[in-house]
Amino acid sequence: MKWKNTVLSAGMALAITNPAYAGSEIETLITMLHENGMVSEAQYGRLMAELEQNKTQAAEEKAIVEQKLAEATKPSDVEVTIDKGINIKTRDEKFTSKIGGRVQADAAAYGGEPDMGDGTEIRRARLYIQGTMYHDWGYKLQYDFVDTGSAGIKDAYLSYTGFDNLELKAGNFKDPFSLQEQTSSKFISFMERGLPSAFAAGRHIGVMASTRHQHWTLAGGLFGDTVSAKGGAEDEGWGAGTRATWAPVNNQADVIHLGLGLNYRETGGTNAARFKQQAESHISGINIVDTATIAAVNDFYKVGAEIATVQGPFSAQAEYITTSVNRDSGNDLDFDGWYAQAGYFLTGESRQYKNGKFGGITPKGNVGDGGIGAWELALRYSTIDLNDAEIEGGEADSVTLGVNWYPAPTLRFSANYVDVLDVDGGTNDGDEPSVFQVRSQWAF
Amino acid sequence: MKWKNTVLSAGMALAITNPAYAGSEIETLITMLHENGMVSEAQYGRLMAELEQNKTQAAEEKAIVEQKLAEATKPSDVEVTIDKGINIKTRDEKFTSKIGGRVQADAAAYGGEPDMGDGTEIRRARLYIQGTMYHDWGYKLQYDFVDTGSAGIKDAYLSYTGFDNLELKAGNFKDPFSLQEQTSSKFISFMERGLPSAFAAGRHIGVMASTRHQHWTLAGGLFGDTVSAKGGAEDEGWGAGTRATWAPVNNQADVIHLGLGLNYRETGGTNAARFKQQAESHISGINIVDTATIAAVNDFYKVGAEIATVQGPFSAQAEYITTSVNRDSGNDLDFDGWYAQAGYFLTGESRQYKNGKFGGITPKGNVGDGGIGAWELALRYSTIDLNDAEIEGGEADSVTLGVNWYPAPTLRFSANYVDVLDVDGGTNDGDEPSVFQVRSQWAF
Amino acid sequence: MKWKNTVLSAGMALAITNPAYAGSEIETLITMLHENGMVSEAQYGRLMAELEQNKTQAAEEKAIVEQKLAEATKPSDVEVTIDKGINIKTRDEKFTSKIGGRVQADAAAYGGEPDMGDGTEIRRARLYIQGTMYHDWGYKLQYDFVDTGSAGIKDAYLSYTGFDNLELKAGNFKDPFSLQEQTSSKFISFMERGLPSAFAAGRHIGVMASTRHQHWTLAGGLFGDTVSAKGGAEDEGWGAGTRATWAPVNNQADVIHLGLGLNYRETGGTNAARFKQQAESHISGINIVDTATIAAVNDFYKVGAEIATVQGPFSAQAEYITTSVNRDSGNDLDFDGWYAQAGYFLTGESRQYKNGKFGGITPKGNVGDGGIGAWELALRYSTIDLNDAEIEGGEADSVTLGVNWYPAPTLRFSANYVDVLDVDGGTNDGDEPSVFQVRSQWAF
Repeated sequence: MKWKNTVLSAGMALAITNPAYAGSEIETLITMLHENGMVSEAQYGRLMAELEQNKTQAAEEKAIVEQKLAEATKPSDVEVTIDKGINIKTRDEKFTSKIGGRVQADAAAYGGEPDMGDGTEIRRARLYIQGTMYHDWGYKLQYDFVDTGSAGIKDAYLSYTGFDNLELKAGNFKDPFSLQEQTSSKFISFMERGLPSAFAAGRHIGVMASTRHQHWTLAGGLFGDTVSAKGGAEDEGWGAGTRATWAPVNNQADVIHLGLGLNYRETGGTNAARFKQQAESHISGINIVDTATIAAVNDFYKVGAEIATVQGPFSAQAEYITTSVNRDSGNDLDFDGWYAQAGYFLTGESRQYKNGKFGGITPKGNVGDGGIGAWELALRYSTIDLNDAEIEGGEADSVTLGVNWYPAPTLRFSANYVDVLDVDGGTNDGDEPSVFQVRSQWAF
Repeated sequence: MKWKNTVLSAGMALAITNPAYAGSEIETLITMLHENGMVSEAQYGRLMAELEQNKTQAAEEKAIVEQKLAEATKPSDVEVTIDKGINIKTRDEKFTSKIGGRVQADAAAYGGEPDMGDGTEIRRARLYIQGTMYHDWGYKLQYDFVDTGSAGIKDAYLSYTGFDNLELKAGNFKDPFSLQEQTSSKFISFMERGLPSAFAAGRHIGVMASTRHQHWTLAGGLFGDTVSAKGGAEDEGWGAGTRATWAPVNNQADVIHLGLGLNYRETGGTNAARFKQQAESHISGINIVDTATIAAVNDFYKVGAEIATVQGPFSAQAEYITTSVNRDSGNDLDFDGWYAQAGYFLTGESRQYKNGKFGGITPKGNVGDGGIGAWELALRYSTIDLNDAEIEGGEADSVTLGVNWYPAPTLRFSANYVDVLDVDGGTNDGDEPSVFQVRSQWAF
Repeated sequence: MKWKNTVLSAGMALAITNPAYAGSEIETLITMLHENGMVSEAQYGRLMAELEQNKTQAAEEKAIVEQKLAEATKPSDVEVTIDKGINIKTRDEKFTSKIGGRVQADAAAYGGEPDMGDGTEIRRARLYIQGTMYHDWGYKLQYDFVDTGSAGIKDAYLSYTGFDNLELKAGNFKDPFSLQEQTSSKFISFMERGLPSAFAAGRHIGVMASTRHQHWTLAGGLFGDTVSAKGGAEDEGWGAGTRATWAPVNNQADVIHLGLGLNYRETGGTNAARFKQQAESHISGINIVDTATIAAVNDFYKVGAEIATVQGPFSAQAEYITTSVNRDSGNDLDFDGWYAQAGYFLTGESRQYKNGKFGGITPKGNVGDGGIGAWELALRYSTIDLNDAEIEGGEADSVTLGVNWYPAPTLRFSANYVDVLDVDGGTNDGDEPSVFQVRSQWAF
């Protein structure tokens, strides 16, 4: 807005010289009258002197006013907006600060076996502060109050973006793995991620380098253990991961996405691993498949393949993840799972895709602005197999139907019906539980 | 402040046309001189042309300046105030954000039996973010850092106020029950609520509808269990509650309040209940009356009657609460309690009353602004009876004397002396402990 | 910036009277023409009247414009800056609010005995809100998310600064003791404080009075127990502490500091004490010296002597702390320790010293602003002796080499190598572990 000052001053300059102009005909008149002999030489001199003095004075005053007005119209140094959290930034964007958060309040009713207690929970209650310092440095601290102690620390990192199109990160954040994991819980199509999220890589303390382009992204990192891990006399676990995505088509409402992720983890002092999953519902906390703790596990690695598309109001995504567990003794173990889902916006919106993951929804009309918000229907099939060798964790597959209502970009209500078609093996062998659950969410 | 622009522009308009005006006598003069034959036809023409041109030029410049000044004087989009927490709002109030919190630091010394350890504690240390989105939507997340994990989550909800005089809420918040519970701990007259707070309904995850008017309020909700409850294979508890208040008189410093509350709770998988109370002091954590866990409890309901008044600097309130416990086997149980309290502001302030509960104090003169703050004396008698059938939790009654000093609206210092007149029955039968405790508080 | 209004209005005043001035020669001209008999008496009257009316009108319009412009140029009531956290203050500084925090992400590798597990941790993840209310009142609430429940509450207090050069505090904050403890973990020269930090006085709930001058400071307080202490039937512990500092030389980059601290603590109901220390590394959590819990301890007191200096880019500090433990039975115990450290800024910066402790670093050139930040080398020797009478906690001494890089005032990267020269006595007798650890930090 700096331009305003100059133009304005210019405008004022003209405006103030006004009197001088408006006086020009006086000068002419006086000269004429003098020529016509109506004004004596002496009088003419006096008039002209007075005129000159007035012009000079006008010029000086003009200068003062211009300077003062320039100050008065200087724009403020920072911009504050609160439509999506509290956002403050300096106009040169050298510094930015954002305070945001989310609350997801859930309720669920369960049917069939195994017994799962109907109930409610605050699924997530997060607050974060995030920003930029000195152009090139980024920081974030996010905490989830539903967790206890350090386990609640989610993103907690420092980043450097001074190199062209490259971001370096140090601290606690998600391993680069799996499309449904990279997509924020604010924006996934259902209340919970599909069954293969049992193989999620999660967050660890480490360092990562990543680059983002319109048609591809690449990220790779080295990680220690989780925030809450405390080795004591034993080494903590460590890991490494990389993820590559390719979007041959990436336009607004027209996307094709392919992704591949690799994730390795050494178990460290625990020397054990466990994989388990609930019925795409978190309230009761009951697992329908569970390998229990597998002892003598030196390390395991995961491979994930992703495919997704957006075609106007329609979107679809699918992932296959396999996990290979290397044991000091006994056969190695292979577990895997996959899901495929589709969604459709009755109100015509499209899922946003950027940097190899999905973002939020912007309704065509917000409730409170005279609109009805965005309405989405979604369907998912997902399956997971935790049976291998002597380990009988169980195999499960389920179908989930979801309805999402986004009254505004920061608001969401969801209803999910999960039908677990079958549990095969494990403690819940033969069970076919079903879930009906609802959520209210605000997030920014 | 939009009006400023227009008025201002108007002002400028006049101001800038100034030269033209100031030139009007020139026109007259020229015309006269022409009529008087002092100026030739040719000269007259030249002068008039020059005059016309100057007028036009002046008009154009006027336009530029008006436009620029309108921009320069456009008010900022958001207003920021920090006298009571950090408040940010858009001028159209479509969006608002507030960051607030409170810290209460307490110390206590105990006398008599049972043994209660002298000590200190941070009673509450809360931070919250709250606001409005798109006019009609409200959100809040408040956490108390003295608690552990999800137990610290206090208000965590989403609300809709788009319907006339009706608020719909979903998430975690207080059941609508009991005047002293509805009144914030920042604003209650003593450091702790009266003995019947053993029957407080507390906060649960649920949905509630409420309407507020100057002379009455009505709220009703359906609730699940607490944030920290985790059912596992068992159903969590659930409940329902309603509260109606009537204020036949409700003016500044002149209030009469009547209230009635009903609260029902099904115990869910725990199938148990427990009621206990401390000596209106939280530091030692010792209970003077306690039913211990009552088994085989299917559900219980509470009824509360409220009456309160404000007459200038004087205020008084009283409540009676009874709780009926239904057991699967054995007699049902009835517990109850009541309190009556009065307060007086030596400095002439009045308790604020709004929406069926009490609010904060605004001293007539703030310390730091040359005032002495607000000084209040308060006295309370309260009693609770947890003896029924074979359950001997004990009966207790106490008298509490309190002094409150509010140096400013956001500051408070309190000193309370609690004299437990008698404990009758239960493990502390015959004891008569006393408490002296002090608090420093900032809250906004 | 209030001056702007007045000066500006003045400027405008002149500017607007402009036409009148610019018209003065007209008046002269008219008068002359009248004297010269070129303008009739009647015409003269008409012209003068018109002139007069125009002057009046000009004056009125001038007034409007001045008033409007004064409003338009009124500065906003609050100032917002975000270069070091979110800072908001009213221009009269009657109210201020700051939101700040810090994240320290660490990794360590260990060598030698005892076994210490390599790993990572978020050392600190803090958020705080702090400010001023009504000129004279200060408030702060700071929480560390790596801790659990109330243990994470760090500063949580209310303060009064209305008396000349005196601060009164109530709430939870650090006892006034030890230079390296008073200096924030953001600003200490190494990743961890020296071995004598085993004798740190820590934070307690209490009241303190302190005064600060350029050449000396004095603080004294009465304290209860820690936030997390819960006495139950037993009294909590309590204590008292005082610290005096003297800086005969205290200029920018030229400081000599001397300090003396006394700290007394009564153990309360626990009636026990324990002193332990890690190898100046927090990740593994293993103690190299540890008295284990010493029973029958009634109270103990600590004496600490401090000396420090800043000479341009060079800085040095040393402390000796002794602790005397009084037991109900058995000999009293004496433990002690000391450290001496030196640091040098290769890039020429100096450590900041104020109010008897060290502050942050301001690089001569920030990374992101074309600079390379501040680079510091630091060396420390520290030792602690926990052997006395039958208590064999062990004696240890270590040398630590540190490198610190401050890309900007709010950013820091550190690498430390700790060589424990010897552990003498205790469970780790004869061990000589070594540590290599790194940290990334943002803090404001």
